[in-house]
Amino acid sequence: MTEPTTGDAFGEMIRDAYAVHIGAGRRPLAGGRYPRPVIEVIERDDGLINGALAAHYLSEPADWRPFDHRAMTFCRGRVLDVGVGAGRTAIELQRRGIAITGLDTSAGAIEVARKRGLRDTVLNTVDEFSRASVRYDTFLLLGNNLGLIEGRERAPAFLAALARLAAPGARIVAQGTDPYGTTDPVQVAYHEENRARGRFGGQLRIRLRYREVASDWFDYLNCSVDELEELLKGTGWRLKSVDDQDHPYYLAVMELME
Amino acid sequence: MTEPTTGDAFGEMIRDAYAVHIGAGRRPLAGGRYPRPVIEVIERDDGLINGALAAHYLSEPADWRPFDHRAMTFCRGRVLDVGVGAGRTAIELQRRGIAITGLDTSAGAIEVARKRGLRDTVLNTVDEFSRASVRYDTFLLLGNNLGLIEGRERAPAFLAALARLAAPGARIVAQGTDPYGTTDPVQVAYHEENRARGRFGGQLRIRLRYREVASDWFDYLNCSVDELEELLKGTGWRLKSVDDQDHPYYLAVMELME
Repeated sequence: MTEPTTGDAFGEMIRDAYAVHIGAGRRPLAGGRYPRPVIEVIERDDGLINGALAAHYLSEPADWRPFDHRAMTFCRGRVLDVGVGAGRTAIELQRRGIAITGLDTSAGAIEVARKRGLRDTVLNTVDEFSRASVRYDTFLLLGNNLGLIEGRERAPAFLAALARLAAPGARIVAQGTDPYGTTDPVQVAYHEENRARGRFGGQLRIRLRYREVASDWFDYLNCSVDELEELLKGTGWRLKSVDDQDHPYYLAVMELME
Repeated sequence: MTEPTTGDAFGEMIRDAYAVHIGAGRRPLAGGRYPRPVIEVIERDDGLINGALAAHYLSEPADWRPFDHRAMTFCRGRVLDVGVGAGRTAIELQRRGIAITGLDTSAGAIEVARKRGLRDTVLNTVDEFSRASVRYDTFLLLGNNLGLIEGRERAPAFLAALARLAAPGARIVAQGTDPYGTTDPVQVAYHEENRARGRFGGQLRIRLRYREVASDWFDYLNCSVDELEELLKGTGWRLKSVDDQDHPYYLAVMELME
């Protein structure tokens, strides 16, 4: 088999999902006539593959899960949405008059977020962007984006970049997933193999695939709150509160120590 | 990356899609609580990947495409549904009092078709099954299953197996797709590469993936009616009629020459 082309798979997918959403532009059609839903395909390094409807990246507040609504209430001051995607939550915050900036590494995602009306966007990594002189009061990591912390190797640099961008009293509001409640043998075996390699059990090694394009392989972390606390040690950030009323999903609020 | 396990990916998918459909049994749930649609993932040998909702394998007649309804009217006498899947059309034919047998190579698909009430099922290839002494008046290949003819290498043996199972005056009713109307550069390039290798342009080399399981790689043919006629030469089958009012989809009816 030929390997897929490496590129902005997420952005390609978001562009198509947006075209389907508004019913205009180049859209996936079966036989050139029947609309097809846009599907996100996630491939994991153990050979597991999962598909999901991409439409949720464009969902309206009425269709959000309850923890997304509660996350909004934790936002203070200037907000940086890290991994803004198609702007699902950022656009709602902007609508409410909150000073919101959307950051993403996907050019396609930023393009769609802007088309949808998000005014302040940044196409960059947090590392590069942290050399800018802007400061934020809240870093918002929704849609499971606590996963961007990746694991033991990446967490210190990622959290240091956010600290450089932090105004006094800044907080991180991040939605995570505790993966360890499962009894699915495929998942349990994956957690064990990960630990045997010195990784967190839920430290996913994945890539996105969309049509002929694949992202690079990257780590994405599903971790318990205990594991999150381990990752925060020595970073200057501390866990202030955890909302886990929608377990296994949770909202973690972290603050910079003075 | 670890390669997926080879197995009955189609059957695993159909089992899960059926559990979601009836709302009982082991079902895919996000975070152990939110229902997830079952997605069919098809990987092609050029690196292309496509996801589609598996629910259509269980769709009711009200949701079928028009050509599926017209296909029903071409059935005569005893019918063998080749690649019966979850029994989408076979169960409707049975309901109408038609003598219908469902054949599939997927154990999971046959299991689900039986659970849904299809009484006469065969878990086998057409090649092996053609040594049986039963005879059919109609071979039904819906859901794009004209594709099972694969290409120049496989077509003679496949059509010979159906001929061995044929009662006098038997017909094949097959739904195909003409792939050549596209201007999508990915598809056009694939067609050209295929032809350069002596294959039909639309001779897909694909495998199904579902969770940790992948099917073997197999050929599946999207062909024009002209290409179908080329494949029929010397096989004893001839094209009797083509219904292409839902172009690029078509229904081909083939008959055994006396």
